[in-house]
Amino acid sequence: MIAKSQKHWNGDVGTLLRVGQGFRLSSVDASSTPGYGRSKKHAADDLIDGSAELDELQERLYAQSMVGTPPAAAAVLLVLQAMDTAGKGGIIRHVVGSVDPQGVRLAAFKKPTPEELAHDFLWRIEKKLPAAGMIGVFDRSHYEDVLIGRVRQLAPADEIERRYGAINDFEKNLVASGTRIVKVMLHISSDEQKARLGERLVRPDKYWKYNPGDVDERELWPAYMDAYQTVFERTSTEHAPWYVVPADRKWYARLAVQALLLQALQQIGPRWPDAPYDLEVERARLAAT
Amino acid sequence: MIAKSQKHWNGDVGTLLRVGQGFRLSSVDASSTPGYGRSKKHAADDLIDGSAELDELQERLYAQSMVGTPPAAAAVLLVLQAMDTAGKGGIIRHVVGSVDPQGVRLAAFKKPTPEELAHDFLWRIEKKLPAAGMIGVFDRSHYEDVLIGRVRQLAPADEIERRYGAINDFEKNLVASGTRIVKVMLHISSDEQKARLGERLVRPDKYWKYNPGDVDERELWPAYMDAYQTVFERTSTEHAPWYVVPADRKWYARLAVQALLLQALQQIGPRWPDAPYDLEVERARLAAT
Repeated sequence: MIAKSQKHWNGDVGTLLRVGQGFRLSSVDASSTPGYGRSKKHAADDLIDGSAELDELQERLYAQSMVGTPPAAAAVLLVLQAMDTAGKGGIIRHVVGSVDPQGVRLAAFKKPTPEELAHDFLWRIEKKLPAAGMIGVFDRSHYEDVLIGRVRQLAPADEIERRYGAINDFEKNLVASGTRIVKVMLHISSDEQKARLGERLVRPDKYWKYNPGDVDERELWPAYMDAYQTVFERTSTEHAPWYVVPADRKWYARLAVQALLLQALQQIGPRWPDAPYDLEVERARLAAT
Repeated sequence: MIAKSQKHWNGDVGTLLRVGQGFRLSSVDASSTPGYGRSKKHAADDLIDGSAELDELQERLYAQSMVGTPPAAAAVLLVLQAMDTAGKGGIIRHVVGSVDPQGVRLAAFKKPTPEELAHDFLWRIEKKLPAAGMIGVFDRSHYEDVLIGRVRQLAPADEIERRYGAINDFEKNLVASGTRIVKVMLHISSDEQKARLGERLVRPDKYWKYNPGDVDERELWPAYMDAYQTVFERTSTEHAPWYVVPADRKWYARLAVQALLLQALQQIGPRWPDAPYDLEVERARLAAT
């Protein structure tokens, strides 16, 4: 079934953006719009079509989980990683925001607290996994522990090395227990980041979003790109592949992430469950009140 | 300042719906639309206008909290109470859902767990309070402990009695620490509930929402109305008044709750904070990268 929102893609978005064998991040044009030939104006309409589909699919997923209809334990987890200003917040507002808030569990992972640091790096992650029927969204994730963790040497090299395998095991078990993982890196160019940071320094409604530390991180851009490349090579697996979404054009990135979420839900294929009670009996009971 | 979404109200919604001295729940017409003279069709447009205002006000509130600009600790807490089918879910989807998910903390309080029951009834509530900058939403709340708690005698009479005072103290301190509480009872008629339950028994996409226990609760309707009346008399305080929102017309209830939230935020009056760093210095640093 081709949903309304998908009919304007000229190619399978999952296949086009998926990180496979031989992938090179440095070869991705951050301003490209793979698989989508329409304009920004049309993209807004297509995003609205997809919003309604996403909302209904999530509600069906939740309904199934409530009634215990297989696959009752199904959930979706969207993992968002990106350099600063790449648009994670916009994805959450404009894509995830179209889903009923009751069906979303959002977790933002910031600098770990002392308590979190006293545990394995996955400890705080596991506590935020979405329950059956929900769409979980990780704004940053366990991948920070092999990204900034590696670039800024926040852990010994052998510990960083250990984590790639630990992540793969963790995600494999998560998938086996019913959660589909959609791992997205929003990819912007260094020039686009500079422009967006600059905007935060001229618009009074954006001042609060700017952090002087963002400029320091910019100096480490090549090291971050290397760390992402390694992440892709080590953790883009069959069960939980990475998708690199060109994000210099915000409207494309939003449409593409929505399409990836729609695919994940369509693959689960949730349906309205049968009534787990006798309809006739209940109609009679209600009528008697 | 009269916001665009408020110009079609012919009266102050907060004043009209507020539970004051001598209030009788039994005198409220659940199908009325106090203060709003326009039709359902116009209500949809007005809701959209209000959505954008609500979203921006929440973002300003969050921005303030990040930068530490007074009142930095401000938050809003929407408490939703209602009989089954009254439309709490619709309020969350259509009113709260217009706010950036990153600015909302939603908590649904179901039947307490054994661990929760081993603590005071406010223990689980306190853990879900919204942080500064956020809009918290309680789908059911501590009021269940004096509603179903009273109707079904889930606690001794003197314990139920104790709770009204405990609630007032708790809310007084919450308000003093910067949280505005908007307590809403969505009020439907018994006939409307019967119709809505009936709909769940004929629409396959609604079967999962029906619970045979809902019919049993219907038999206790008068006892619940008494319990609500007592809640209003004991806990509609100056610092945290109750609002009874007629909810037989869903479109009115959504518009009214949105208007109450807008009022709460406007009373806080959040503004975009000044930059907490030197703009010129940062522009130069960024330009050098």
